[in-house]
Amino acid sequence: MSLNPKRTIAELKELRDLTGDRDGAQRLAWSDTWLKARAWFEAKIAALPVEHHLDAAGNRWVTLPGDSPQALLIGSHLDSVPNGGWLDGCLGELAGLEILRRFADEFSGRPPVTIRLVDWADEEGARFGRSLLGSSAFAGTESIYADRVRADRDGIRLDAALRRCGIEIDRFPEARRERKNAAAYLELHIEQGPVLESLDLPLGVVLGTKGVERHAITFYGQEAHSGSTPMNARRDALAAAAKLALAIRPIARKHPDAVCTMGSLKTFPGIVTALVGRAEATLDQRDLDAAILAQMYREAREASERFAVEEGCRVEWSKIWSIEPVPFHPALIEFCEQAVHETVGTAHRLPSGPLHDAAEVARAGIPTVMMFVQSLRGISHNKIEDTKEEHLELAIAALDRLATKTAEWILRS
Amino acid sequence: MSLNPKRTIAELKELRDLTGDRDGAQRLAWSDTWLKARAWFEAKIAALPVEHHLDAAGNRWVTLPGDSPQALLIGSHLDSVPNGGWLDGCLGELAGLEILRRFADEFSGRPPVTIRLVDWADEEGARFGRSLLGSSAFAGTESIYADRVRADRDGIRLDAALRRCGIEIDRFPEARRERKNAAAYLELHIEQGPVLESLDLPLGVVLGTKGVERHAITFYGQEAHSGSTPMNARRDALAAAAKLALAIRPIARKHPDAVCTMGSLKTFPGIVTALVGRAEATLDQRDLDAAILAQMYREAREASERFAVEEGCRVEWSKIWSIEPVPFHPALIEFCEQAVHETVGTAHRLPSGPLHDAAEVARAGIPTVMMFVQSLRGISHNKIEDTKEEHLELAIAALDRLATKTAEWILRS
Repeated sequence: MSLNPKRTIAELKELRDLTGDRDGAQRLAWSDTWLKARAWFEAKIAALPVEHHLDAAGNRWVTLPGDSPQALLIGSHLDSVPNGGWLDGCLGELAGLEILRRFADEFSGRPPVTIRLVDWADEEGARFGRSLLGSSAFAGTESIYADRVRADRDGIRLDAALRRCGIEIDRFPEARRERKNAAAYLELHIEQGPVLESLDLPLGVVLGTKGVERHAITFYGQEAHSGSTPMNARRDALAAAAKLALAIRPIARKHPDAVCTMGSLKTFPGIVTALVGRAEATLDQRDLDAAILAQMYREAREASERFAVEEGCRVEWSKIWSIEPVPFHPALIEFCEQAVHETVGTAHRLPSGPLHDAAEVARAGIPTVMMFVQSLRGISHNKIEDTKEEHLELAIAALDRLATKTAEWILRS
Repeated sequence: MSLNPKRTIAELKELRDLTGDRDGAQRLAWSDTWLKARAWFEAKIAALPVEHHLDAAGNRWVTLPGDSPQALLIGSHLDSVPNGGWLDGCLGELAGLEILRRFADEFSGRPPVTIRLVDWADEEGARFGRSLLGSSAFAGTESIYADRVRADRDGIRLDAALRRCGIEIDRFPEARRERKNAAAYLELHIEQGPVLESLDLPLGVVLGTKGVERHAITFYGQEAHSGSTPMNARRDALAAAAKLALAIRPIARKHPDAVCTMGSLKTFPGIVTALVGRAEATLDQRDLDAAILAQMYREAREASERFAVEEGCRVEWSKIWSIEPVPFHPALIEFCEQAVHETVGTAHRLPSGPLHDAAEVARAGIPTVMMFVQSLRGISHNKIEDTKEEHLELAIAALDRLATKTAEWILRS
């Protein structure tokens, strides 16, 4: 039996009905619903000529052994955010399953290279605030000591939640063993942004995941009575923050793919009759080019200091988190472009703003590439997340072409 | 015995020690500490040849009958915000007491005009969010049906809190009876702003209380992923709100005494990884000139609509509260200027940004004026609120001069 993308769409709907509700997907990692999704997935692979197991970080590995031990990895994640969409994560996983089936069929259970399908554990980090958890263990970039004491909103600790699922966080480093013979990694994902839709393109070739600089910025002014404080006697922390909220936009717009976002701004005391004495902002900056990212950070910081002086305020920066840009592998980007072009006649290259497990795999030194399929309205992490079914079918066909090209490349290498 | 401003300062300190703690004044209206302050005040007037009673709204009236039934009213309030300063309210009350004493002494208990000292109930509105409560009952501008169901943070309703102090809110309108024979009203208050200090002047002549336009402004954009949404595809509600936060400043600066303040800005969902889909701001605009106030409101509203269009957002305005400007009486402003000039050699006229009970009295058609004494650092509603003692003494002396001039004017009228 050859590749059957319609089967994948039917399976996506089956999973949606099994693990979603009227508010959307509910496959929160380490929850009963997530375990139900994984059990359903396990049943799907039961009839295939594969070995499968969970690694020390809870990632599921499904291996179709080939003539060569060198392995082509295809993966994504079954976990979702609460009230999530029907495609984020599971599309890539079930598309990978379909391609594994195709390899098994075409080569009577023994393809030229080993094919490994991986279901990463807790990509979203929605419950404990630590995304890419399973893939970071695989890549050796996990941060066990910082993460084990994370607690969810009910006070349950990450290590306890994992233990309930049979995972001991102290054994995470053993997950690195799965890197043995890993020759390439492919991941299909919905874009989760508006770029492909605005270009009227079904598929995109992903150049890498953008680096991120994420900071908390606090302006300190002087709280004062809004009625009795003349305009020229004010030290208004909100004015300084408002200037920064606007200034980060031209800083980003100098570069074609860069973004800068102020996602949160809090005012204190935050009452209608008082000037803002303290304004707390967050800044998130992203680009695929490390030099551009560094420049944007520097420019935002300088701007904030200038605005603080102008408004008689003081500013403090505190890093929340950062990650370097992760460019994907040039040869695989080329294969992805060919596969997309052969499938839909045109190919567009774009960076990924959101992070993906693929970034962790690439950081581990494994040649990696991702393919995006158009998201309607650019919306994700929401029950209205959607993609046209014809585009889903094209995506699975293109990923299959990419898998074939990559398998051939592994054999040649 | 003649006027003794040092006694007033000693009494202010006595009251501070009796009703304050390490965090400041704690005379929250309707609390036990406030009742303690009022009982202390009652003891202070016990030896004077006065009649005193509470009116239906809980305002205390102390009457020194004169040859004429026409009455000169002097007043302020003993209640404070939690963790308040040692002067806000009680300075005016105890200065009034000292002047009543002086009239009683000078005219052997029978001055030419009746002198009435009033301690307004719940000027601050700190517990139930309704300021000028007692004076609004006097003025006939009370809003019983809106206010009776207000609850404090413990869920205790305003009407229940008043009943505990012997006040029935339904009888509030009876407080208007105290307007009989009221010929003029004087109030001394700390400035609560930085103007007099910046001019190095101890005293100021208050022209009236500014009108206030107070609105909630909500910008609706589109929540979106901060990593996957290009800069040119954003509908950022925070950007629109930030533009407004900056635009209200030139709108105010066109006019010498106008102020516009954005005191609160809230962002939703308010997370570092998402564009702001909704931004909720407050705007407080004040001026003594109704036409300027109306113009500033119109300009801010137009600017918000322009910014909404520029940012692909939608904006909604909702009135929180407004009050018209209350100009004080021209003849009394003139007397106040003379009294201040005679006391300190120079006089500066300024409007009051904060509201005061004097505004309610003036709205009731009673000729009114206020005098301000310098606030150090312009800070009030805080335990560090302070004024130099030499300035307090000058203020009491000037208020006494103003009282004499006003009493003579009442007799002439």
